[in-house]
Parts: sequence; structure tokens; C-alpha cells
Amino acid sequence: MTKVAVIGASGYGGSEVLRILQTHDEVEVVYLGGNTNAGQSIGTTLGNFYDINDMTMQNLSLHEVATQCDCIITATPHEFLVKILHKEILKQCVVIDLSADFRLKNPLKYQEYYHFVHENLELLADSVYGLCELNKTAIQHAQLIANPGCYPTCSTLSIAPLLQQKIIDTKSIIIDAKSGVSGAGRSAKLDNLFCEVNENIKAYGLINHRHTAEIEQNLSNIAKHDITISFTPHLIPMNRGILITAYANLESHYASITQRDLDNIYKQFYYDKYFVRVLENGTPPQTRWVRGSNFTDVSVRLDSRNKRVIMMGAIDNLIKGAAGQAIQNLNLRFGYDENKALKNIAMFP
Amino acid sequence: MTKVAVIGASGYGGSEVLRILQTHDEVEVVYLGGNTNAGQSIGTTLGNFYDINDMTMQNLSLHEVATQCDCIITATPHEFLVKILHKEILKQCVVIDLSADFRLKNPLKYQEYYHFVHENLELLADSVYGLCELNKTAIQHAQLIANPGCYPTCSTLSIAPLLQQKIIDTKSIIIDAKSGVSGAGRSAKLDNLFCEVNENIKAYGLINHRHTAEIEQNLSNIAKHDITISFTPHLIPMNRGILITAYANLESHYASITQRDLDNIYKQFYYDKYFVRVLENGTPPQTRWVRGSNFTDVSVRLDSRNKRVIMMGAIDNLIKGAAGQAIQNLNLRFGYDENKALKNIAMFP
Amino acid sequence: MTKVAVIGASGYGGSEVLRILQTHDEVEVVYLGGNTNAGQSIGTTLGNFYDINDMTMQNLSLHEVATQCDCIITATPHEFLVKILHKEILKQCVVIDLSADFRLKNPLKYQEYYHFVHENLELLADSVYGLCELNKTAIQHAQLIANPGCYPTCSTLSIAPLLQQKIIDTKSIIIDAKSGVSGAGRSAKLDNLFCEVNENIKAYGLINHRHTAEIEQNLSNIAKHDITISFTPHLIPMNRGILITAYANLESHYASITQRDLDNIYKQFYYDKYFVRVLENGTPPQTRWVRGSNFTDVSVRLDSRNKRVIMMGAIDNLIKGAAGQAIQNLNLRFGYDENKALKNIAMFP
Amino acid sequence: MTKVAVIGASGYGGSEVLRILQTHDEVEVVYLGGNTNAGQSIGTTLGNFYDINDMTMQNLSLHEVATQCDCIITATPHEFLVKILHKEILKQCVVIDLSADFRLKNPLKYQEYYHFVHENLELLADSVYGLCELNKTAIQHAQLIANPGCYPTCSTLSIAPLLQQKIIDTKSIIIDAKSGVSGAGRSAKLDNLFCEVNENIKAYGLINHRHTAEIEQNLSNIAKHDITISFTPHLIPMNRGILITAYANLESHYASITQRDLDNIYKQFYYDKYFVRVLENGTPPQTRWVRGSNFTDVSVRLDSRNKRVIMMGAIDNLIKGAAGQAIQNLNLRFGYDENKALKNIAMFP
Repeated sequence: MTKVAVIGASGYGGSEVLRILQTHDEVEVVYLGGNTNAGQSIGTTLGNFYDINDMTMQNLSLHEVATQCDCIITATPHEFLVKILHKEILKQCVVIDLSADFRLKNPLKYQEYYHFVHENLELLADSVYGLCELNKTAIQHAQLIANPGCYPTCSTLSIAPLLQQKIIDTKSIIIDAKSGVSGAGRSAKLDNLFCEVNENIKAYGLINHRHTAEIEQNLSNIAKHDITISFTPHLIPMNRGILITAYANLESHYASITQRDLDNIYKQFYYDKYFVRVLENGTPPQTRWVRGSNFTDVSVRLDSRNKRVIMMGAIDNLIKGAAGQAIQNLNLRFGYDENKALKNIAMFP
Repeated sequence: MTKVAVIGASGYGGSEVLRILQTHDEVEVVYLGGNTNAGQSIGTTLGNFYDINDMTMQNLSLHEVATQCDCIITATPHEFLVKILHKEILKQCVVIDLSADFRLKNPLKYQEYYHFVHENLELLADSVYGLCELNKTAIQHAQLIANPGCYPTCSTLSIAPLLQQKIIDTKSIIIDAKSGVSGAGRSAKLDNLFCEVNENIKAYGLINHRHTAEIEQNLSNIAKHDITISFTPHLIPMNRGILITAYANLESHYASITQRDLDNIYKQFYYDKYFVRVLENGTPPQTRWVRGSNFTDVSVRLDSRNKRVIMMGAIDNLIKGAAGQAIQNLNLRFGYDENKALKNIAMFP
Repeated sequence: MTKVAVIGASGYGGSEVLRILQTHDEVEVVYLGGNTNAGQSIGTTLGNFYDINDMTMQNLSLHEVATQCDCIITATPHEFLVKILHKEILKQCVVIDLSADFRLKNPLKYQEYYHFVHENLELLADSVYGLCELNKTAIQHAQLIANPGCYPTCSTLSIAPLLQQKIIDTKSIIIDAKSGVSGAGRSAKLDNLFCEVNENIKAYGLINHRHTAEIEQNLSNIAKHDITISFTPHLIPMNRGILITAYANLESHYASITQRDLDNIYKQFYYDKYFVRVLENGTPPQTRWVRGSNFTDVSVRLDSRNKRVIMMGAIDNLIKGAAGQAIQNLNLRFGYDENKALKNIAMFP
Repeated sequence: MTKVAVIGASGYGGSEVLRILQTHDEVEVVYLGGNTNAGQSIGTTLGNFYDINDMTMQNLSLHEVATQCDCIITATPHEFLVKILHKEILKQCVVIDLSADFRLKNPLKYQEYYHFVHENLELLADSVYGLCELNKTAIQHAQLIANPGCYPTCSTLSIAPLLQQKIIDTKSIIIDAKSGVSGAGRSAKLDNLFCEVNENIKAYGLINHRHTAEIEQNLSNIAKHDITISFTPHLIPMNRGILITAYANLESHYASITQRDLDNIYKQFYYDKYFVRVLENGTPPQTRWVRGSNFTDVSVRLDSRNKRVIMMGAIDNLIKGAAGQAIQNLNLRFGYDENKALKNIAMFP
């Protein structure tokens, strides 16, 4: 039995952590942390927990929380955990952080993309990037797990197979991404009002979206050399889901690769990965088939007219892109089945 | 271990039955029935099952199906099961029917509301109406369970407490209902196209909606005398959810009843019902807090200015209003915990 | 040519006033008032005006504004205009107010429903309620026009014909209303975020919604005696539209009235009203058929089983329920064709 | 006064033609053509026209229609007009065709992309492609105008300025497109049901979408040499709107071009085009700011890290992408102001 604290429990990510943990029979949730909602019961703030979970959100110090549990899951804003996390806490318990505070190994990137100076460099160096399919062994021994961002998770898993096989020209990668609105978090902003988002689509964060650095870090690690990409996210009028449509040119010596070859590369790359499903023959993934699940659906389509490939992926941004992957990390770290409490398939419609 | 066949597995109701049963560890699904999709694998038709469930839909006779299983769940169009179900089948296995074919005890109502002559009168007489919270004992011994309609489930549970206590004038009941689009089923109709439904609200089926008869049957049973109601459903641009807003005048000797009295009546009525949550103080239920779950949220609000009450309820029309209640019935009938495989709370957002 | 100032031009109501006035060839918009957006061009704040309207929002005093124009249209929060409007301003120009500040003739209702003490009693007495179809003559001579609320407009027009003819029991009126989200205005509130509203329906403001007083005032005026009603609004996941479903019992001496009789009463009542369209035979109105237009679609359906009628109406809450009716009022007041700049039919889909 | 017939009047495109023409004071609509709806009044089929337009849809031959009018606008399925249009008809009246039947100058492309053999080659050669901003003079003298497709309109206008200036590498063009659901037309298909589309995003028609050929034809004409592109459309859960996000590499001698240079190229290219609005500084266009209008919003963003540009455009697929451009073509052809009946800006929200 693992005792878990969830901090930021009333946000979209944190409440999903809590919801999924309700069905995890090896985990006991012992603490819920909130800020503005401290003192309120979770069932008042979030009606789905009404009459089911009678815990009250609290606002204790991280030190106090650490004494009560084996694992702290933080679903807090960026620049929160980085300022309060200390080595001593990590001696007491594992921390799985859903924010970006410990994802980027190069601390200078925090200035460039997050506009703050990262001063927790030792922990940054020790942290393990929690993209489970690519980093399993390290996760199993980590004390501080940086749970990946939603776009980076889906982008990386969509592109990794061809990148690793050196089939695509790494200077030609373009990622056109689409996300539901829950990715923007649960805070009152004019831009995320129903009437501003509904019946609209827009690109945003062009060139300098914060996830660009994280995606480039991941792809560079796979390719074993520095890669820059074009990353263009779009906001879609739906609650959940991320769809990645990525383009790259074939390396010239792979100009005659076939659709079947491409499919096989994906299937081999993911053959033992429970949470990645490879769609064959370039069938486009759809977010509805993963919504509410921890699955990533990927596929690749050959564009032989242009000697190019289209690499696609779909996730639920709050599950595989946040809460679900956090619990997958917990499972790996504490020795449970990787898919424990995560076997639900998508709820459709 | 109970062997279950699901017929109509690629519709919205049937596929939800199958999805939920994936997590039911005392049930083995042994057969999937489809009509136009027979021969296809379920994972091709419904991408959420891709790579997870490799069963193929078949189109066997009901007799053949019955030999393979302990329980048949039919999520088929009205007027299908009524024509093929025989006593012999019910000797072999339990049938839980999501259609209306065995819900209305008065066969003449089928002519009036469903425009066909019901000729399976013996089974109609033997069938048990599967509204679990009100009919538990009979369900536990039934061979043919008529799973209730979505509107009737939510309407009946919203009104039952005050009706049973004879607090409301039974001639004054008005039910204004709102439903998501999945209630219309998964068939290609112009009226249910995205662009026809989105950014629109309309009433439909005024006066003679087919669920009127079923609601009146339920309410009359509770009141122990015949009741007619006004029932007005509306179509809402969302996938799932039913909200009931029901109005009735207080009987004159209850004119000074208090909000607290009303709350207590609801809480007592449902105190041992796992799947009904009573919101206090007239807090309006919201479909988002039950979406994806088998819960019914109900509340009542006193309108003392008009000596009237507003009785409200929310369900997920595909879960408590269809697939979830079918499995709740299965659990009751086969002796499992009533909430087995049904403990999920709503997925939000 | 009428010179018009629009105050509150960047809200949902105010910007619609401005958009419609762009096509009004007898109106010149000479001033745009904004508060937080003062100093910004309207085309920066609202991209639909980009490159089309190069006016800048300002924050002048009402006195200064009044010197520049013939008519001020205020689309400002409640309790704003009431505090700054003086007789002198009304000598200079006509004011059409989209807020509730001058709608309720009984000042005590402001304490009860709006929680402030109304101290501008002389102007309140002089103000004219701008429900054009019912109050045309007074509007034509008014200096201060209180533009009606969205729910009151649609509710009143739906019920007026039978109320005036004394066909319905005035103690039995129940109004179940449904509104799109734009009715909540353009300010950043958690409850109106996309993910909170989408895939959800809820009732709100039970018993004491502020429009209750305004509807009761209207209905009482028509009936010529005091009426109380039950009014229950619901929030629907769509941008625009209000649908009213109102119920009332037939007076006993009208128990045998026919559907045709009812239709005729509506058609006679509205025969010379351009903006009210009567659907026959109880055809339910749909918000999509009025969205973007100033039309009100109404119909009535006889429920002979229950000796009751269902009165229905649909409007676009931002047009007939706000900006469109404001311009209809302007047209009446300044002697233009009532439908000038308002002839657009609904944009579908 | 121009007499116009609209064929296919009850579809999404045709009904928008009719709606816009209601406000065109130099046009008289003399005929409405329908197929399955022939004999019905337009106001029955489409509630927005109820009580406003009492015309009945008919199903006359094209010859009979041609005798009654100066201009026929066909909003019919592909492969309909191509089989019935003859030279004689074009002697009597102008035809503006919203289908693809006369858009592709190379008849072989119809076999490849539309799967039929084009046998109306003389008229195909004579037809004029109606992309008004690029083809104005020819349109002014055309008898047969092939109204462009929605994706091609938005894609071409987004890319044209840099293509004409030879700033981008024409082998590197990738168009990632997103469309609302109305682009799929008004016919009952399972895939376009509300519950299939809502809360989902998917790519479709990869590599071989029919608009690929039309876009390549347009871009090749501008570049004056053959171009192939990658074109990937996506279906978005909204009624209206197309957003284009196009990527291309800078030609090496333009590697140091600045954002300001790029902006200026767009502004110069479109300085006299009423319906194209250039957003500066790479501001992303949003479909909500053009919805309901005939405007195209375009912008370009320099990606200097990757020596690439992102070219963006937004239109309303039913207006500039169909009905609006048809009327813009009519205006050009019959000598009216180009923006007559088309001045409406977007309705927001």
C-alpha cells in the first residue's frame, strides 16, 4: 500500500489524478492540497466526488506533507515546486511533478521559455524525465520524476520510431498540434471562456511555445544530436484531446521506403508497450478513441509524391498527457503493474 | 463467472455495455451480435476497442446465442426482440433488454406510443421492470429484465420520494427534460448531424413522446393510482446527459413544508441506495458531475412563493440511463455486488 | 442621420450594437465607450472589426458624451448607469439602456433582486420599458428607454397572447428557460470557462433569478393583476439563443379549446408584428432559426390530456434579447422603419 | 436588376446563397431548385426563411430554368452539372457553379481525384476559375464561373504573396488545414453525426483529398511551374470556419528576410483587395473573426530558427469558401460593387 498526497487537487490535472487513484487498490490517498480552496471538501469543489470522497483540501507545508506519505504528486503551476522542493523531502518520499519545473535539463531554457531563473540545479540534475515508454528503467529508481507535458508526450511518441531509425531528415521536422481547452488549466481567463473558444479555431504560441524546448530535448536525445523543430499548437473547441500531425522529409537513401516498412518500424518500436497502439496503413488517429484512457494512438503515412512522411498521434491530454502518465510513473516506481488503475479504454461517445 | 452475450454491440448503448464489462472480473463476454457490422471486428468499428478486444461481431439466431451464455443483453431497436424472444430462451439464460419491448405492462400502450401490436403477451406479463432502486427484489429473481428508458429512469428517481409521501398534487406534475444527442442512437439521420444540433436547442416529441407512457406507468405505480403528466423533452448540443426539471404543486396540507423537510424526505428515501446522491438545499444537479458514471444526482427545491416544488435529477443517459443500469441489473440478478464494475465517478471535464 | 454613442462597446451586447449599426445607413456612430479597454481601438479588442472600424474606445464622462450625440446606448453592468444618469443628459439626448437599471417600476424590487437601493426614482418613473411589440407608442416618445432583459423578452412574447385573452390560469404559470452562455456576459469567471460549460447542462438562479421580477412585472401588466410565476433558467453549451418552454393550466371554461383556436389567437395577436413569427400546430421553435436575427419565433401546443398549454418561444439573446431590440427601439424612437438594419434572417448553420 | 436561379437551395451552401441574396437589392431570386425537397416551400425546409420567403423549390430542367433568369447558381453535388450543362444554356445566362465540375483545367485530374471521366471538355476549357482576388478581369467576362473550393480559396490566398515573390522553396510547401463540419454538406452520414464529431479531432483524406489538385493548380499558376504539396485536412467540432497553417522553407537567398519584410509583402499584395485583411506581426488569424463574413484574414510568421515561414489564413467556409464568393463573382460579372450584400462583418460570439 502506497500513501499518496495530491497537491493541486482541484485543478483539471490534479482532480484526474485523484479520480484515477480512487480505483487503484494499492494506493491510499492521505492528503489533498489546495490553495484557494483549502478548507473545502473536495466533493464541494468538484461535484463528481460528492458523497464519494469526504476529504478536505489543506494547505500544509511540503515538509509536513512529506511526513505523511510515500509519494507526493504535484499538479501545481510552474515555478511553484522548484522554489520549495529540497533534498530532504526526496529522502522521505518520491515526488512526481506534473509541472515543467524539472523537465528541462538545460537550466537556461527556463529563462528563455518560462521567464524565471532556475536555482534548484542539483535536483534538476537528479530528476528523471517520466516519459514511461522511453525511460522506464530510470523511472523505476527515481526520487523526483518530472512528468512530461502533454504536447511533448504525444509529439515524442509520434516521431520517435522514425527518428531513432534515422529515416527522416531531422532539419525538416514540423509539428502541427491541436489541443482541447483543458490543457489551459482551470483558472478564470477571458480567452478560455466558452463563448471565446466555441465555434473557433486559432493557432497560438507560435515559434516560442514553452513545450518547444521540451520536445526538442526529447527528439535530440533520441537522435543523439541537437534538433530544432517548428511547433505550432492550435486550440480546438473540445474539452480533451491532443492530436499531433508531424511532417518530415525522408532521408534520401530512404526515398523508396514503403508504407508497410513504415508500419513495421512503428510496430516493432512499440511491440511491448501496452499504452501505445499502432494504427496501420496510415489510418489517422482520432482523439475520441483515446479520450478518458491512458493510450496513445500513433500512425505514419507515406507521402511518396513529396518524399515525406506524416507522423500522427492522439492522446487524452489529461490522462496520458498528465494524470494518467503520473500514475503510470507511480506504478513503475513502486513496482505495481504498469497499467494498474489505467486499463479503462476510451468512453465513447 | 457469468457468460454474457451483447447484441447490438456497435451502437452507443451496446458498446457502453461492452466497455463497462471489460472491467467486470466476474463476467466473460462470449458473443457480440451485430447486424450491418456482422463479420467486422469490434475494434475496427469502434476505435476505442482497437488492440484491446479482438472479438468479431456475428449475426447468429437468438437460439444459438442462448446456448453459449448465461445472460443476453440486447441493445437493439424497438420491435426487434419482441418478435423473436420465446420462453425457451428464457429457460436457458437471463435476458436484459435495453429496448422498450417489455417495459409497458399495458400492451395497448405499444399501439398508442410505438405503433405496433404487441403479441408476446405472456413474456410481457412475466418481465420485470429493471429500475434497480425501486424494484430490487423482483430483479433478483427475473428471467427477463426490461431495462428502463433514460428519461423514465431519471424522471422517476427525481419524483419518487415526494410522490410516495403524497406531498405533491399528482395532477400538477410537469416534467421538463433535457437530453444529450446520444439518446437518439447511432444511425445516420439528417436531424442528428453535427451542424443541425450544434448551437441549437429545441423541444421535440411534445405530448406524445414514447417515454411518456413509461414515466406515467412508474409514477402511477408509486402513487397507487393513475397519473398523467406533461412531459417535454429537449435536445441539447452535448453527447451525454439527461437533466430533469420537474414541477408539482404541494398538496394543500403540506403548504408549509420546509426545505429541510424536503431534503430529509429525499435523504431517507435514498439512504441505502449507492447510486443515488441527494444534493441538499436545492442545489441543482449538473450532468457533468455524473457523466460517465452510474450515479443519479437528485435534489428538490421549495418554491414557497408558489406553493410548489422543483424536483431535479441528472444522469448519464448511456450509463444509468442504459448500459450502466443493465449491468447493475446483471449484478443484482447474478448475486454480485450491485456496484461491481460501476464504481467509476464522473470524468471531468 | 442620428449620432449614436455606444458605451460598453467591447462586451457581447455592446459589440453587437456596434456591428448592427455598421449596416444602418441613418446612424453615425460617433463615440465608443470602454472602461478597461479605453485607449484601445475596437479592431484590436474585437477582431471582427479589424480593418473595418478604426475607432478607439474612450472613457469620457456621460456629460461629455451627451454633447456629441443624439442617442446613447449603454451596454454596461447593472448599477452603473443608475448612479450617473441625470435629467440634464436626457434633455440632450435619448438614452437606451441595456442594463436592468430602469426596467423595474417598483424600486423595492432592486433591493430584493439586485441588492442595491435605487435612488434615481424620478428617472425610473419616467423611463419607458422597451419591449417594442407591446409598448410601441410610449417608446416613440421616450427619452429613457429600458431595453428589456433577454429572458423577459422571450417569456413575455411567448405567453402574452393567451394571458391577454384570459385563457390560462395565472396562478399556474411555470417558465422553464434555457440560454446560451453569452447571456452571462464577457467577463472572466471560472463558471463560464469552456470546460465548465461544455458537455454540461444545469439549472441556476432557482426561485430568485433577477429576471423573475421583470417577467412578473410584464405579465402582471398584461393580466392587469399581480402574478407570480416559477422561473427556472438553465445554462446550455452554445453561444447564443434562448428557448422558453412555459406551462399553464387552461381556465376551466376554456377546457375544450382547440389547437386551431390557440394558433389563431397567436396569429391575431402578432399579425402586424414584423419580428414575431408564429409557428402553427405546436411546432416547437428552435434557436437555430433565429440565431443572428431579431426575430422571435413562438408557438403554442395544446396538452388536452392535462388541460394545459405549452407556450414556446425562441430568440437570439444578443439580438432580440439585447442589441437588436435596442436598435429596434432606436428605430421607433427616431422615426425609422422598425426593421431598419434588422432584416437579416438567421445564419444557418 | 439581375434575375437569379439557385439550384440546390436547401443545402448548406445553397441556402447561404439565398440568405445573402435576400439583402442584395439588385438581385431578384426567381427560381429555387431542389431535388428531394422539390414541392416544399423553402421556409418549411429551412426555418430561418419561414414567413420571410414563400418560394417553393422546383425540379425543372436546366433549360427551363435558363429561360427565366440571367444567372444560375448551382450548389449541387459533384458530377451533376458537368453532365447537363450545354453551350446553349451559357448563351442565355451566366452560370456560377459551386461544385468542382469545372475547376480543374486538366481533365485527367477528374479521374484521379473525383473518379469520373470529364466529357464536357469545351466548357471546361472556357470556364473561368472564380478566385476573385486573383482572377478579377477574367471573371468580369465569363459565362461559366467555377467557384473555388473552400480549402483552395483559403490556402491559395494564404500562400500567394510569398509564392509570387519567389521567396519560398516550392518543394517544401506543407498545408495543414482545419475545417468545421458544414464543409461536409447536408446529407445524413454516420461520420457527421453530432456524437461522432463532437469532442473529437481527426485528420482525413490524407495525401489524396480532392482539393489537393485544385490547390496545386492554383499554386502552380502563381509560381509558373508545377508544384506538388502535402495537404492534410482535419475535421473540427464546429459548424463553420477553415483555418490554414502552411509551412515552407525560405529560399536560401531570402534567409535573412525580416518579419517586417514579410508583412509588407502581404500588405502590398492585398492593398486593394477589400475582402483580404492582413494581420501584422504574425498574429494568428482566428475563424471567429471571419465567421459569417466574406473576409479572409491572413498573416505570415517568420520562423528564423528554422529558416522557415508559417503562412496562415482563416475564412468562413460557407461564405468566402462558397456562397459569399459566388455572390462576389456575381457582383464582378454583372458590374455591381464587389462587396454588394457582402459587407457584414463576423457575428461574434
